[in-house]
Amino acid sequence: MIIVMRPDATADDIAAVAARLESIGAEPHVSEGQLRTVIGAVGDREEIRSVPWEAFSGVERAVAVIRPFKFVSREFQPEPTIVDVGGVKVGGGNFAPIAGPCAVETREQLFTSAEAVANAGATILRGDAFKPRTSPYSFQGHGEAGLEMLAAAREEFGMPFVAEVVDPRDVELVCSYADLIRVGTRNMANFTLLSELGRQTKPVMLKRGFTATIEEWLNAAEYIYKEGNHDVILCERGIRTFETATRNTLDIAAVPVVKQVSHLPIIVDPSHSGGQRSLVAPLTLAGVAAGADGFMVDVHHDPETALVDGPQAILPGEFADLMDDVRAVAHALGSTL
Amino acid sequence: MIIVMRPDATADDIAAVAARLESIGAEPHVSEGQLRTVIGAVGDREEIRSVPWEAFSGVERAVAVIRPFKFVSREFQPEPTIVDVGGVKVGGGNFAPIAGPCAVETREQLFTSAEAVANAGATILRGDAFKPRTSPYSFQGHGEAGLEMLAAAREEFGMPFVAEVVDPRDVELVCSYADLIRVGTRNMANFTLLSELGRQTKPVMLKRGFTATIEEWLNAAEYIYKEGNHDVILCERGIRTFETATRNTLDIAAVPVVKQVSHLPIIVDPSHSGGQRSLVAPLTLAGVAAGADGFMVDVHHDPETALVDGPQAILPGEFADLMDDVRAVAHALGSTL
Amino acid sequence: MIIVMRPDATADDIAAVAARLESIGAEPHVSEGQLRTVIGAVGDREEIRSVPWEAFSGVERAVAVIRPFKFVSREFQPEPTIVDVGGVKVGGGNFAPIAGPCAVETREQLFTSAEAVANAGATILRGDAFKPRTSPYSFQGHGEAGLEMLAAAREEFGMPFVAEVVDPRDVELVCSYADLIRVGTRNMANFTLLSELGRQTKPVMLKRGFTATIEEWLNAAEYIYKEGNHDVILCERGIRTFETATRNTLDIAAVPVVKQVSHLPIIVDPSHSGGQRSLVAPLTLAGVAAGADGFMVDVHHDPETALVDGPQAILPGEFADLMDDVRAVAHALGSTL
Amino acid sequence: MIIVMRPDATADDIAAVAARLESIGAEPHVSEGQLRTVIGAVGDREEIRSVPWEAFSGVERAVAVIRPFKFVSREFQPEPTIVDVGGVKVGGGNFAPIAGPCAVETREQLFTSAEAVANAGATILRGDAFKPRTSPYSFQGHGEAGLEMLAAAREEFGMPFVAEVVDPRDVELVCSYADLIRVGTRNMANFTLLSELGRQTKPVMLKRGFTATIEEWLNAAEYIYKEGNHDVILCERGIRTFETATRNTLDIAAVPVVKQVSHLPIIVDPSHSGGQRSLVAPLTLAGVAAGADGFMVDVHHDPETALVDGPQAILPGEFADLMDDVRAVAHALGSTL
Repeated sequence: MIIVMRPDATADDIAAVAARLESIGAEPHVSEGQLRTVIGAVGDREEIRSVPWEAFSGVERAVAVIRPFKFVSREFQPEPTIVDVGGVKVGGGNFAPIAGPCAVETREQLFTSAEAVANAGATILRGDAFKPRTSPYSFQGHGEAGLEMLAAAREEFGMPFVAEVVDPRDVELVCSYADLIRVGTRNMANFTLLSELGRQTKPVMLKRGFTATIEEWLNAAEYIYKEGNHDVILCERGIRTFETATRNTLDIAAVPVVKQVSHLPIIVDPSHSGGQRSLVAPLTLAGVAAGADGFMVDVHHDPETALVDGPQAILPGEFADLMDDVRAVAHALGSTL
Repeated sequence: MIIVMRPDATADDIAAVAARLESIGAEPHVSEGQLRTVIGAVGDREEIRSVPWEAFSGVERAVAVIRPFKFVSREFQPEPTIVDVGGVKVGGGNFAPIAGPCAVETREQLFTSAEAVANAGATILRGDAFKPRTSPYSFQGHGEAGLEMLAAAREEFGMPFVAEVVDPRDVELVCSYADLIRVGTRNMANFTLLSELGRQTKPVMLKRGFTATIEEWLNAAEYIYKEGNHDVILCERGIRTFETATRNTLDIAAVPVVKQVSHLPIIVDPSHSGGQRSLVAPLTLAGVAAGADGFMVDVHHDPETALVDGPQAILPGEFADLMDDVRAVAHALGSTL
Repeated sequence: MIIVMRPDATADDIAAVAARLESIGAEPHVSEGQLRTVIGAVGDREEIRSVPWEAFSGVERAVAVIRPFKFVSREFQPEPTIVDVGGVKVGGGNFAPIAGPCAVETREQLFTSAEAVANAGATILRGDAFKPRTSPYSFQGHGEAGLEMLAAAREEFGMPFVAEVVDPRDVELVCSYADLIRVGTRNMANFTLLSELGRQTKPVMLKRGFTATIEEWLNAAEYIYKEGNHDVILCERGIRTFETATRNTLDIAAVPVVKQVSHLPIIVDPSHSGGQRSLVAPLTLAGVAAGADGFMVDVHHDPETALVDGPQAILPGEFADLMDDVRAVAHALGSTL
Repeated sequence: MIIVMRPDATADDIAAVAARLESIGAEPHVSEGQLRTVIGAVGDREEIRSVPWEAFSGVERAVAVIRPFKFVSREFQPEPTIVDVGGVKVGGGNFAPIAGPCAVETREQLFTSAEAVANAGATILRGDAFKPRTSPYSFQGHGEAGLEMLAAAREEFGMPFVAEVVDPRDVELVCSYADLIRVGTRNMANFTLLSELGRQTKPVMLKRGFTATIEEWLNAAEYIYKEGNHDVILCERGIRTFETATRNTLDIAAVPVVKQVSHLPIIVDPSHSGGQRSLVAPLTLAGVAAGADGFMVDVHHDPETALVDGPQAILPGEFADLMDDVRAVAHALGSTL
């Protein structure tokens, strides 16, 4: 921690900061500049962070030098984490195409989509039984009946599935069915839910909050990791910006930034960031080229009747074409699918 | 709903949209312009909204004409809602100064702050027993023990209190102690929690998500209202923008905008938006002048030792001075405290 | 400047940074922490800033301790600047109500509005002859003919006027007519224009870029100040955020933040930030309560025929009512008009 | 234009809107819904847009159905524009790698970089002689002397060059040297500069304002196009968001969005969006995969001594490696370089 004093800070102000640092076992390094004094704090970072330095008299601001997360950082574990999702590996060179309908609507809808994506090369099925919706008047999902249909599709097409959980009281239920549990963008900072998932054995896909910084996102992953669940896959799905031409702005740079600072696998979700069918293919390919460990897209055989997010779903045939391009780009960059 | 067709939309595309509208009992009004055809949809708004129009062939975009919320709108109820918080009225001309520590730390800390704010004219006490924190390594609150201290302070100083709930499983517990239940900014879109609170009888303070639009915020209020709990107070607490000089950007215009479209009372939280002690007074006065129904500020007798948000807490003496200015501005604009 | 080294930085990396600091006459203060080494740089700030530290091997990031502007800071000049606008003082306790039409359309339109605002208590007239417009198909202003009408209105109603300049080649022309030269939000970072104005003797009103941080805004003021023109008035007019309910988000906290770090006067523009007639009054009052040195609003006697920004113009009668409330709030807080 | 009336709009309000539409030769299409009346306006779009509908009594909002730009739209010209830059074609399947130093510092620095990028396959050289800088204390470029060095490099290495212009008074000068004139991100809304460039014969590269929407960006291109200069290349260079891990957020979706609505070529600038050397390669490849017509990167042989933007410059060897990957991805997707 670097503590920057105000130009009008007194010797007593500086001494008070130094004394508090010493009282928690840390060492103050004082540098006097032309205009300001700066105090470097060396010691246990949790102890140092726990003090409200900016509330001290004469302090202008406190700048953290070390990131607040620990276990999910590259410094803690240099080699990439590989997550096992019902037998499918994700990360560390293992690329995962994930596809299926946004929400489970009917058995026929789910199976039509699942068969198509399995044939085209998807390795994990997506489909939700619980949907958090902005309006209380929108379709909220089929609940356990939806999970049962997903389990039947897994049986039929031989692919594990990912499903969202929105309520800490449903964690056990969803874990009893799904192979990979998804935390949606609106729940990324639902620390209650994160802690609960940290005590489970199923892997977790943590979507980035559409208004969360990368650091906050990795802090959220730390909540899960620290409770004992180390199988976390990050999913970049776009952030909220001033641009309204797209639903959200896919932060493509998050892929290489996360790879630099963390060992966790990261995938992209071009469907929910772009919000339009025509943007799914270019954004998916951008994600592959930027180094993502996989991608997740919505596929629906009849988007005009979709109960959730129809405008962004691609057709089964479009998914098959996309998979051809994904393979070509991945091979061009030396990866294998 | 206005459905704007693409310039290359065919007669069949237009007929398909019209047919779907008729199939759900709505009436299509077709206007052919120079470059595009536009279809106005007249009928039941929930039915019309439930169709994914932008997934239809030839559709460029669908523009909602009517806001998605109903019960919390001025159109549904023109006169302002007045919420009763343990005997203290908020809204409809009743102005509420709410103050106290951010988190309950010790009985002494709570009582010192509570006594000071009660003497200066605050009518509701704030103090939290459950804190959602970005980092898993930060202080998370004292839980039920904290609620007990708050109840004791209520007894001692004769003022009702507001406390946050972060987990749907704690709703009953917090409701059994607090007079006003707060939903924090990170939980504004936690629809599970909102629905749970909609089934309680205690009033709810709903903070704006720091990344939520005003429309999304009112949708969140609708979740609570629609379940039967009509006592909702909105709290503007700043939004996330590119500016880093302040913790968040207090969206002062949200006060008059909300008053135009909704009948619910709205207050401001200058402590959490500004993030600095020196900004609390000017932002509070701005809120009063803009027409807010109250404000909520953090007061701590020793910010340097605060476990949560010390840099933004004001001292008891500063709060008393602020109350003098608040009264003066309120009187200048014809309100009474 | 604080230079934070990466955990894997070598002794040679650290030595190279220290050597470069010494080569420019600065002193390196090296602190070795548990995980990282941090180097504090003490010396001439312009020299230190001119080196691309983050391009050095082993450097994680460089954190500036001192703000990049100098002359416009409180440290350089503790007492507030008072700007003289054609005999009307602004700043240091002198409050300026500025009003008039957005654009000069006709002599009748300008004089009707000017007479009304003068009678209601405005001390400076606004009205533009050059308008920068997003679309090339919109009205761009009357040019010199507009400035002549403004000069005639000044004569008639005895109030100085402010007008915008958009082209460095028009600076002399506008300066030959107007009492206060305005730099619009889209030109805040037009450094060519700023430098030109820095060499003039007329005072400048510098609007905040709607996407500029407060620090960038003060840097822009520094461009003007450093060339020799010290009469700069800042104008907060809203920033671009994700919220679409208002045209922009008035950053009300910018008023106290600027007052803390700079000696320049600051006013607010509620018309262009809110973009709606009904928001002008509450936002103006919020600005007054937050401590602004004045405000500027669009007044038009017939907004339905306005060529520019009609929806946000208030009527002459509304302006008179607003002035009553402005006086009341200002008096409540101890200011005089 | 769709004009949405307020629920409390009177028959007179509706009649007034209709009458004004008829007075400008447009046709009102009135639809009465359950809660609101909506009026579709059919007629000349410039005429309809010029009326301040939201200033009319009873009007809630006016929604534009047609985009404000015309000549740069796909509707105006379905086939892609191909721009000729000193003999090098850009757009319509012609992919352009553009590289060189951010600023021209010395002849040696420029020639070292130019030789390296020419050998590695870049087809256009970049290098600036005029730099708009946030701080008035930063290096502002060598002016005409810099342009002369760029012309010498063009001669030596047989590649045309692009250079920025920041002042309308320098347009002729820069056009007399450079093959492609760049408008920087801070000048995208400098309409004076845009109009001046619209009257030149040299092609223009228009960078996106870091706070401009895609629609505003295309409006800026319209300013140039409408004056007669049809050779415009768009350059996505990142937008300002709340994320601080990168300098700006590369809006990768802008590439396919622009391709849908406009016929102009679009390239990406990974150096200025990411702001870090390590992000240049993944962001460039993402741009290629998303369908960009080229890219522009900063290359410097000694970034530690760079006067501008050293931290984001890549080394000549890194550029050569990147070109190998660019070719591989382009080939995988069926393009040729």
